[in-house]
Amino acid sequence: MEKLTDRDKRYLWHPLTQHKTQREMLGIKKANGAILIDEDGNEYIDAISSWYTAMYGHCNPAITEAVAMQMQQLDQVIFSGLTHEPAIALSEALMEVLPANQEKLFFSDNGSTAVEIGIKMALQYFYNKGQKRSIMLAFEEGFHGDTFGAMSVSGLSSYNGPFEEHFIQVERIPVPTEDTIDEILSGLESRLQQENIAGFVYEPLVQGAAAMKMHSAEDLSRILSLLKSKGVLTIADEVMTGFGKTGTYFASDQVRIKPDIICLSKALTAGLLPMAITSCTKEIYNAFYDDEIRKGFFHGHTYTANPLACTAALSALKLLQSAEIQENIRWITDRHQQFDKEVKNHPRISATRQKGVIYALDLKIETPRYGSLRDRLYEYFMERGVYLRPLGKTIYLLPPYIISDVQLNKVYSAVRGALELDL
Amino acid sequence: MEKLTDRDKRYLWHPLTQHKTQREMLGIKKANGAILIDEDGNEYIDAISSWYTAMYGHCNPAITEAVAMQMQQLDQVIFSGLTHEPAIALSEALMEVLPANQEKLFFSDNGSTAVEIGIKMALQYFYNKGQKRSIMLAFEEGFHGDTFGAMSVSGLSSYNGPFEEHFIQVERIPVPTEDTIDEILSGLESRLQQENIAGFVYEPLVQGAAAMKMHSAEDLSRILSLLKSKGVLTIADEVMTGFGKTGTYFASDQVRIKPDIICLSKALTAGLLPMAITSCTKEIYNAFYDDEIRKGFFHGHTYTANPLACTAALSALKLLQSAEIQENIRWITDRHQQFDKEVKNHPRISATRQKGVIYALDLKIETPRYGSLRDRLYEYFMERGVYLRPLGKTIYLLPPYIISDVQLNKVYSAVRGALELDL
Repeated sequence: MEKLTDRDKRYLWHPLTQHKTQREMLGIKKANGAILIDEDGNEYIDAISSWYTAMYGHCNPAITEAVAMQMQQLDQVIFSGLTHEPAIALSEALMEVLPANQEKLFFSDNGSTAVEIGIKMALQYFYNKGQKRSIMLAFEEGFHGDTFGAMSVSGLSSYNGPFEEHFIQVERIPVPTEDTIDEILSGLESRLQQENIAGFVYEPLVQGAAAMKMHSAEDLSRILSLLKSKGVLTIADEVMTGFGKTGTYFASDQVRIKPDIICLSKALTAGLLPMAITSCTKEIYNAFYDDEIRKGFFHGHTYTANPLACTAALSALKLLQSAEIQENIRWITDRHQQFDKEVKNHPRISATRQKGVIYALDLKIETPRYGSLRDRLYEYFMERGVYLRPLGKTIYLLPPYIISDVQLNKVYSAVRGALELDL
Repeated sequence: MEKLTDRDKRYLWHPLTQHKTQREMLGIKKANGAILIDEDGNEYIDAISSWYTAMYGHCNPAITEAVAMQMQQLDQVIFSGLTHEPAIALSEALMEVLPANQEKLFFSDNGSTAVEIGIKMALQYFYNKGQKRSIMLAFEEGFHGDTFGAMSVSGLSSYNGPFEEHFIQVERIPVPTEDTIDEILSGLESRLQQENIAGFVYEPLVQGAAAMKMHSAEDLSRILSLLKSKGVLTIADEVMTGFGKTGTYFASDQVRIKPDIICLSKALTAGLLPMAITSCTKEIYNAFYDDEIRKGFFHGHTYTANPLACTAALSALKLLQSAEIQENIRWITDRHQQFDKEVKNHPRISATRQKGVIYALDLKIETPRYGSLRDRLYEYFMERGVYLRPLGKTIYLLPPYIISDVQLNKVYSAVRGALELDL
């Protein structure tokens, strides 16, 4: 039997990959709980929950059994003119945990489309009100997806070269620190005298792709508060931070000023199926609710509110609300804090940071060596049975909530080992 | 128990909907084969296969059983650096049916992202080669999705007002007819003397959202041939036309000149789960395969190549290739032809058209009455147990391949009845 690794090369083009320099793809045969198993039977602890999705463990029976039942009942139906129980039940359950100002849910298929919808809602909100606001605001170094609108609000990256001239108009502000917040606020205040900014897109508290860069809830609140006072709509991209990872249901729960719009995906469906939701306030919805047809929101994807994905999301949300998972989140948070105390003064570490189950450390390494360093670390972890994807010189952990004590110890132990490597 | 219709109103914002003027949402409880069942037990024949997805019937056991098994094995894994059997097996099976020049597959989640990826591939192809080509070309009245890039190449609609100023640069040519093809070709020839067009996005043979507007394969071939001779990349959006609907696996099979890039979604996963694929030639892939990392294609969605969606797609493809489904496609095609002979000279019909299982007729009605006409027709069909979604004055059929003789007769009968209505 030809290996997956070899068959893979024939027809597949992988995402975010330079195939000429990338090592060959590892064939994964099975996943269960916190464990991935490759085609040779080697096991790896999925210490980043497959990009922050499989928070309740892979192939969790509470979720897969519900989806299997739903597959017998109703697989898919058009969500214009028709509706169904899984979408309604999910909407009712989500409203129990979303910030209280959120009132309407709009479905799509991934984080990029959730952000595109947030941007389009903001632009059309002002258009419908007859106000001319068509510039978006975003944080430097943010990441919000790869479609043209979502790329535009993402921090400019060296990979965006071929597309930049096609971007929608976006202005950027730095992520605040204790030292810069006052300057940022005063700059923003004078910028906002021109009333042409429609919305501000931000990852609250933790910027994922920027190597888990964190900022203070109070600084963010001061920025949001200023923006709101000037009529700018605020769009929280909680695709990465949502569903318990920061220690609260949403990162926005820790921020005094609540967003007008929230983008959700990834852990929404617990690593089973693609789906996304853009939630918003009644005020935004009302700006589209009109006798004029054209003031409606004419956005739609074919599989919008897919009943199977809604069922997975509903089952996942019940797990998230369970005492057991809530206790696990606190336990992982505590374990990370203990681990941080142990390693943060290590001579190879330049900085550490944590928010809930998200833990990151930066290695004290000079910049030009990032590329190969990252690959060496990746291979080191894989050889030790731990699946981690360092971002440049940053090692970060985002384990599934069901990780065991033994498994978590093994992850920490691999990180300790990496700190002693001759890098 | 509160009705789905009422519960729906609380938190859900539906796609492509002006909620103030839209009648309330009908709650669908169950779907099986060609039948949708509402919460009061009423049955409707799904005569448009839930937006051209559920071609093998709803909740088809051959598909749901395969997905249920896969859910026990591997639900989701990152598709950068890792790979898995469902994606590889699907790639191998798709290569048997895709046009022979297609060699690489890039996964995403819906038609919009498949088109965004096609556009980005075209733009970066020239960027990587050091050529400045940054304008896209598209047909008037095309529809390619709702994200910013996909909206940009779609024909301008009255609903795009709030977003137009943010569109990427696109020029449009008319869809050819016998009378206009020569003029279009000569206009294009002179336009192409400026070598700044990167790619041409088109729905081959049938423009779905434009009310199943059709054009000739030979006229399209002449346009594609001219574009190719001037180095323009051709991007066939087969999201609607793909997987047997036009009588061949892909509409492009009937067109002499094959596309460089093909966008697939909808029936790809048989109405079970969201997924999309953008396929391309080796020549395009090679323009990204380089020692320079930045020449890679840095696009990716978290659930890329989701193993469950790949499994659904593989099962669906096996069904499509079966003698039974191929025979059904021919049978529906024949039945449509017979029905067309019967009705095409009806005084209430201004035009009819067919391609495979897609059949459309335009009613002879003056324009200003479209809006309410569409709603009256929709209700008329629903009252007769047939789910059809007229587009303006166009009634179109796109039944699942497994529709029965009795069900198809009931659909035709409802259409006949609609022709006698006092509209």
